[in-house]
Amino acid sequence: VRHTSFIRTAFLFALIFCLGVPSAFAQQPPSEFSPELSATLEKLRRAALTSDYGYRQAERLTNKIGPRLSGSPQAQRATEHLAAELKRVGFDVRLEKVMVPHWVRGAETGELVEYPERPSQTTQKIVLTALGGSVATPNDGLTAEVVVAESFERLKTLGRENVAGKIVVFTSRFDERLATQGQASEAYRLVSPYRTQGPSEAARLGAVAALNASAGGGGNRLPHTGSVVYAPDAPKIPAAALAAEDAELIAGLAKQGKVVLRLTLTPQTLPDVESCNVIADLKGSEFPEQIVIVSGHLDSWDLGTGALDDAAGLTAALGAVHAVKELGLKPRRTIRFIAWMNEENGVAGGRAYAADHQSNIANHVAAIEADSGAGRPFGVTALAGDPAVAMLHPLTQILKPMDAGVIHATARIGATDLQPLAALGVPIFSPLQDMRTYFTYHHTAADTFDKINPHELAQCAAVLAVLAYAIADMPDRLPRNERNDAKR
Amino acid sequence: VRHTSFIRTAFLFALIFCLGVPSAFAQQPPSEFSPELSATLEKLRRAALTSDYGYRQAERLTNKIGPRLSGSPQAQRATEHLAAELKRVGFDVRLEKVMVPHWVRGAETGELVEYPERPSQTTQKIVLTALGGSVATPNDGLTAEVVVAESFERLKTLGRENVAGKIVVFTSRFDERLATQGQASEAYRLVSPYRTQGPSEAARLGAVAALNASAGGGGNRLPHTGSVVYAPDAPKIPAAALAAEDAELIAGLAKQGKVVLRLTLTPQTLPDVESCNVIADLKGSEFPEQIVIVSGHLDSWDLGTGALDDAAGLTAALGAVHAVKELGLKPRRTIRFIAWMNEENGVAGGRAYAADHQSNIANHVAAIEADSGAGRPFGVTALAGDPAVAMLHPLTQILKPMDAGVIHATARIGATDLQPLAALGVPIFSPLQDMRTYFTYHHTAADTFDKINPHELAQCAAVLAVLAYAIADMPDRLPRNERNDAKR
Repeated sequence: VRHTSFIRTAFLFALIFCLGVPSAFAQQPPSEFSPELSATLEKLRRAALTSDYGYRQAERLTNKIGPRLSGSPQAQRATEHLAAELKRVGFDVRLEKVMVPHWVRGAETGELVEYPERPSQTTQKIVLTALGGSVATPNDGLTAEVVVAESFERLKTLGRENVAGKIVVFTSRFDERLATQGQASEAYRLVSPYRTQGPSEAARLGAVAALNASAGGGGNRLPHTGSVVYAPDAPKIPAAALAAEDAELIAGLAKQGKVVLRLTLTPQTLPDVESCNVIADLKGSEFPEQIVIVSGHLDSWDLGTGALDDAAGLTAALGAVHAVKELGLKPRRTIRFIAWMNEENGVAGGRAYAADHQSNIANHVAAIEADSGAGRPFGVTALAGDPAVAMLHPLTQILKPMDAGVIHATARIGATDLQPLAALGVPIFSPLQDMRTYFTYHHTAADTFDKINPHELAQCAAVLAVLAYAIADMPDRLPRNERNDAKR
Repeated sequence: VRHTSFIRTAFLFALIFCLGVPSAFAQQPPSEFSPELSATLEKLRRAALTSDYGYRQAERLTNKIGPRLSGSPQAQRATEHLAAELKRVGFDVRLEKVMVPHWVRGAETGELVEYPERPSQTTQKIVLTALGGSVATPNDGLTAEVVVAESFERLKTLGRENVAGKIVVFTSRFDERLATQGQASEAYRLVSPYRTQGPSEAARLGAVAALNASAGGGGNRLPHTGSVVYAPDAPKIPAAALAAEDAELIAGLAKQGKVVLRLTLTPQTLPDVESCNVIADLKGSEFPEQIVIVSGHLDSWDLGTGALDDAAGLTAALGAVHAVKELGLKPRRTIRFIAWMNEENGVAGGRAYAADHQSNIANHVAAIEADSGAGRPFGVTALAGDPAVAMLHPLTQILKPMDAGVIHATARIGATDLQPLAALGVPIFSPLQDMRTYFTYHHTAADTFDKINPHELAQCAAVLAVLAYAIADMPDRLPRNERNDAKR
């Protein structure tokens, strides 16, 4: 016990050190919630904390429906199931059309056919997985020499003469120590560009394929998929992620001599498919036209069952609005639950919503998304102006009994679907969560239901419920973001 | 730092608590090594600790040669490489013929095609891997209802009427807490029978296939392969191991209703292949006919590259004899290095050696095998009589400077290849190691070179070197085991 609490204390100190002291409160006069609102929020917090509704819905999405990649039958079944479930609970539900990509994974194999001291008649198998959206190799694979680039700078130094005709292997590794120190998102941000932009950077120098050391925690021979973003001005080349072990193996062998890889990827990009965002409104009693969005994304990658990413966030949001509904609460403003489609490979849902609702954007008071797994919440992250953050200060008291009283203002927020709304001045919020192990499973086959702790999921639902309800029911609406609020 | 040492202290206490105080020393008069032998052993310990020879050989076996399943080209290349390397170092080398099975993995897929609340047009993919030696399903798979058995007792209760025509799923899980408490082998012993004997137990009741929750640590969607041992009196049915997540998924769904699985396994059992044990002698100066074996196994499973199991043990043994040779030491008795073939699926190497050398068994003074991974050593485990253990007591002083001064007498020892020798009365030894994470990777695709810590591997080599040299150079030979020494 002593050991656990020592780690926890150290971790909290590290977290607070990394985040810095929230800057918003120093200059603002303290605001207060009415006793009625405070009492309602406490009731709501308790109700969400003790409900297993979100957990049961997460089980349904993962264990029953399974992986929900945009365009797949499972993604379609997930929208149908969720719409029916929301109607059953008593919400006004509608489906807003979104056209989504339809990419389907095929065979994916890697094999080192030449390397220093290779014994005769043998090859070495490489564990990899195609990046979402990757083009295919020929059906019987492509065989080329490997060139290792530790970084984009190194790739540039190598130049076309060393890269043309070869398979570029980006070996920059996810920093697990940074992740365990409470900066998991930063660790991810440092390596994910090798996945998203690496293939086009390599292709510009004539590479025939690009591989990246998985953007995520390693050691379990699990490759982490994710999107490749092909630049319009570069040839599209096949792209895959290596398991951490295999990236290290290739890097080690390439230091000793020539390494030749046979790579086979046979994914298909099929025509776009009609899908939807699933939207459910709990109408406001006083300002029904004013909207507070609480959301997660319904689609997932195809390797696991999309439990942490993002059944957890989506069902925490669902648990939040379910708790409001079950208690028969009527906030002043409308609480709008949204299950976004296509966060993983295109953000078509987030873009379509912002475009379709552009004329009504001034009525969007705030938007919340949970998309950081099922780790326990410490509080709330806000991409919002100081006055808005100050108005929410009383929330810290409501959330303190569950050790989730931090409000952290930031310019980077883990809510991809909300970026189009943020660009239009809508204040954006996410739960601030323990993400130390999130990127161990993120985008891998191991992102499965068992990784969700029911109590921690309920804690996330409680934070979302209290945050959304407070914004929806405060007498004054939150001010819209100024242009520079997103650039702290 | 404080936190690490707290954990280490707690772990050591737990380990000593679990092992009990070695019983051998209380009644025996203390023995002593001569000052010359003690000085030699100290020199040897230091030489092994500071050499990276074993680590470099482990890199060669895993990263260059790769998986070494009996009968494979890689296993053959490994014997050739090792024989050449031992000759290069200056040993007398010979290959002793062993006939080994030749089983080759094929396609392996699982898919839940029916289960409660399954949405239309969807199935749920199951991660599994064929057990070594498994017979195949039809090429297009077999489809049958699942019946869950938590234990053999439960299977018996279910009886033929509930089992016939079905796929039995054994869901008993590896106890990770026990493993982290220093009892990893015990945790493994509790679940591995569901893999080895489960298929025949199920087949006797008419099952058409058997699956077991992987016998090893879980959470990374990695299935753990290993041998199935078909009973001669039961039909042979296809057998595979499930990833921990998938065992949990099936168990959860089966509680809710009917679950139907489509299982495809297409391994092949080809004719036996001629292979060999690789044997290298360092001739004794005074009693060359007396033999001290120091060994590990050269073959491995096929999913990873057999790093922890058992390139680590083998190359620790190799590092030990290499250190003796490099120092130009000449022990009184012969030190015999053996790289065993076929530990994983048949123990053909261990059996063949005991049979071929039966007439000379009285000259086998002791046999040592390292097959417990690359974790740091705490000392030595002995399957030997009290007088033998007492004679080795001075070793505790030699090994104390590296915190490896425990000698633990036991009846169960992790040295499968030596069991045929143990049955003939030869005292058996293994290093006593930290195995807390060993079964996380054991028999999975993640058993790769990066899991070996070079310093810990050198520590194992040092323990083996000192132990083997002491037994080989003491004035008196160790007494043979009495019949009941193996039954403490």
